Amino acid sequence: MPKLERVRQTTRPVKGFRITGIDAGLRTFFGKQPAPDLTLIVANGPCTAAGVFTTNLVKAAPVILDQERIAKNANSIRAILVNTASANACTGDEGLANAVQSSKWTAEAVGCSPDEVLIMSTGVIGVHLPMERMQSGISAAVNTLSADGWNDAAKAIMTTDTRPKSANIELDGITITGIAKGAGMIAPNMATMLSVIATDAVISAPLLQRALAEAAERSFNCIVVDGDMSTNDTVIALASGASGIEITEEEYERFAGCLAAVCISLAQSIVKDGEGVTKFITLQIVGAETPQGAKQIGNTIATSPLVKTAFYGGDANWGRILAAAGRAGVSLDQSKLSLWFDDLQLVASGTPLNYDQGRANAIAAQPEINIRLDLGQGSNEATIWTCDLSHDYVDINGHYRT
Amino acid sequence: MPKLERVRQTTRPVKGFRITGIDAGLRTFFGKQPAPDLTLIVANGPCTAAGVFTTNLVKAAPVILDQERIAKNANSIRAILVNTASANACTGDEGLANAVQSSKWTAEAVGCSPDEVLIMSTGVIGVHLPMERMQSGISAAVNTLSADGWNDAAKAIMTTDTRPKSANIELDGITITGIAKGAGMIAPNMATMLSVIATDAVISAPLLQRALAEAAERSFNCIVVDGDMSTNDTVIALASGASGIEITEEEYERFAGCLAAVCISLAQSIVKDGEGVTKFITLQIVGAETPQGAKQIGNTIATSPLVKTAFYGGDANWGRILAAAGRAGVSLDQSKLSLWFDDLQLVASGTPLNYDQGRANAIAAQPEINIRLDLGQGSNEATIWTCDLSHDYVDINGHYRT
Repeated sequence: MPKLERVRQTTRPVKGFRITGIDAGLRTFFGKQPAPDLTLIVANGPCTAAGVFTTNLVKAAPVILDQERIAKNANSIRAILVNTASANACTGDEGLANAVQSSKWTAEAVGCSPDEVLIMSTGVIGVHLPMERMQSGISAAVNTLSADGWNDAAKAIMTTDTRPKSANIELDGITITGIAKGAGMIAPNMATMLSVIATDAVISAPLLQRALAEAAERSFNCIVVDGDMSTNDTVIALASGASGIEITEEEYERFAGCLAAVCISLAQSIVKDGEGVTKFITLQIVGAETPQGAKQIGNTIATSPLVKTAFYGGDANWGRILAAAGRAGVSLDQSKLSLWFDDLQLVASGTPLNYDQGRANAIAAQPEINIRLDLGQGSNEATIWTCDLSHDYVDINGHYRT
Repeated sequence: MPKLERVRQTTRPVKGFRITGIDAGLRTFFGKQPAPDLTLIVANGPCTAAGVFTTNLVKAAPVILDQERIAKNANSIRAILVNTASANACTGDEGLANAVQSSKWTAEAVGCSPDEVLIMSTGVIGVHLPMERMQSGISAAVNTLSADGWNDAAKAIMTTDTRPKSANIELDGITITGIAKGAGMIAPNMATMLSVIATDAVISAPLLQRALAEAAERSFNCIVVDGDMSTNDTVIALASGASGIEITEEEYERFAGCLAAVCISLAQSIVKDGEGVTKFITLQIVGAETPQGAKQIGNTIATSPLVKTAFYGGDANWGRILAAAGRAGVSLDQSKLSLWFDDLQLVASGTPLNYDQGRANAIAAQPEINIRLDLGQGSNEATIWTCDLSHDYVDINGHYRT
């Protein structure tokens, strides 16, 4: 088997795509500091497409639009338009009409049908898109498209992110490049996150959808910043086929593994750049009766404000971890619980060991921490990536709109 | 029907009980500032007893002990000992033995059987009770028991609470007095809360249990500070019978209403004094298909860090409320949602109204806020009392143990 390149946290051009990110004045319309705020990716020809979306029942207009278009038209997507500043969520019929209109302007500028355009929006909920600026922004964006525009695009999809997030992998002449934005509202099932992933592989829409869904389950669905699930979460994968290399059923596992690696890299970047994050925590739940139970316990620990603030304070307050596990709604026996911080065991069979407290607090103060909780019940496990809860999180979210 | 007195946020003696709260050196043992930390309530004769307990599967030793004793011995409870500083949770067999030993010392000092003693503990998880100080503290406490000791007791059960919490009601010659502690780890299903409620009514143990369970469902189970559920949550009601006035099935509703009023007052006091709280929020979810669905949506909104930080910042960021509702796991139709801040309607049928934003932000900045979300689906409702998430919460919980 040919050697697989490692995931790089960078971008590389993908054959068949041009992309750009520009300042369309969307942010300044809402009184924010100017910054790139409109991203456009255009394929030279029709792409197969796959999408995974928020499971929130309050869905933004672009999510509703994209779900319909991918269901009908997964063999012929040509462009994705991404705006920040307004999430176009909770905006009623006018919001849906605005999403449709944005796709029409994009289709005219690109030279395709509106049905071949997808829309992603992120920003404040409940405010309408500034449509004049969307129209002029689309016109301007089309003129700056370039095969090398990925870094500009990664910057233009940021909101409270402090740095762009990108990942790239190459295998046997195929390229996969992804960009993502995250920051807040990051829950175990997707997040306030958008991600666009492009490949030049030749792959059928059903196979691409299967690979993307599996990758999301192992990546974006395993991260927690604050436990809030957004109205807008969307990951879209497009395959241009421009490499001429086909992914058959036999090649599937290798391709899916690469796609998952890109998604895991992007997901971890989202947590590391979460709002106010000072610590990156890997939570490994082992010894569970079921994989779902392991994940549910991990998610409950990862969303616990008491656990998160203890890590912020560099306090090895492990009782809060066990207390969170106990309320996860999963059957467990407290006399079987064992807990490690890195390789330091703190608890065995539900009883605290006489461990080195100084060392435990030193681990809790590290920028990256591995926590392992053994439920002692079975052989299933799950890994969740999460972070602490800091003063800055409260600052950012107490004043996000102002 | 005789006139009912209103609930007072104060204490009054209850016939048949003596109580005290003293500094037994438990806090200083763990390096904390000295403060009253041991509470003892003793009845002159056997009481009927009822209890509601945390549903966390990681249960503290005293919870396990009390559940057994109330199950076996609900017609003959004589005393409750409450300590702070150590939760005696995640302490294994030694923790359970320490709880039993504490009850033996109490029984000897009071002159009853250990089976007639209940124990409550609150504080840090995973550390053992300082048993020498428990023993000397019990001896000292017995000598300071008094019918008027309720205020001292309300102070001695405090941990990060900033003020004591008490409630009293009188009806037809019967007194009900309760004290509680709260502060953090306050979840929709109980909290890091302890409460002792005493009455001089004559009431059977099953009827008292029914009244307490109903009252808890309408009070302690409707509050959210941070969504964390404790290992130690316990509410115990004792009835001395010393008034000589019997609560029959006919009198039940009136008595249960009074007990619920005491519990609601204590529960609201817990939220208002939650860790770092600057705002008290009443969330009313109406128009739900089921009462459980209404409560689940209310709890999800109340635990959302994004909703809580927005209120801390005085920002009427209502989209976060709808987004939290949409991820509650309850069926809803976003096009039917309507939302009010006090009497200002912001959203009608899922669409934002052209409301006065200055007024909405002014409401969000009030110390007490009423939020009403109409799901437009049915006729059931729920009310949840909650609070904001502030810098001080992060401070307190980042450094609780240090």
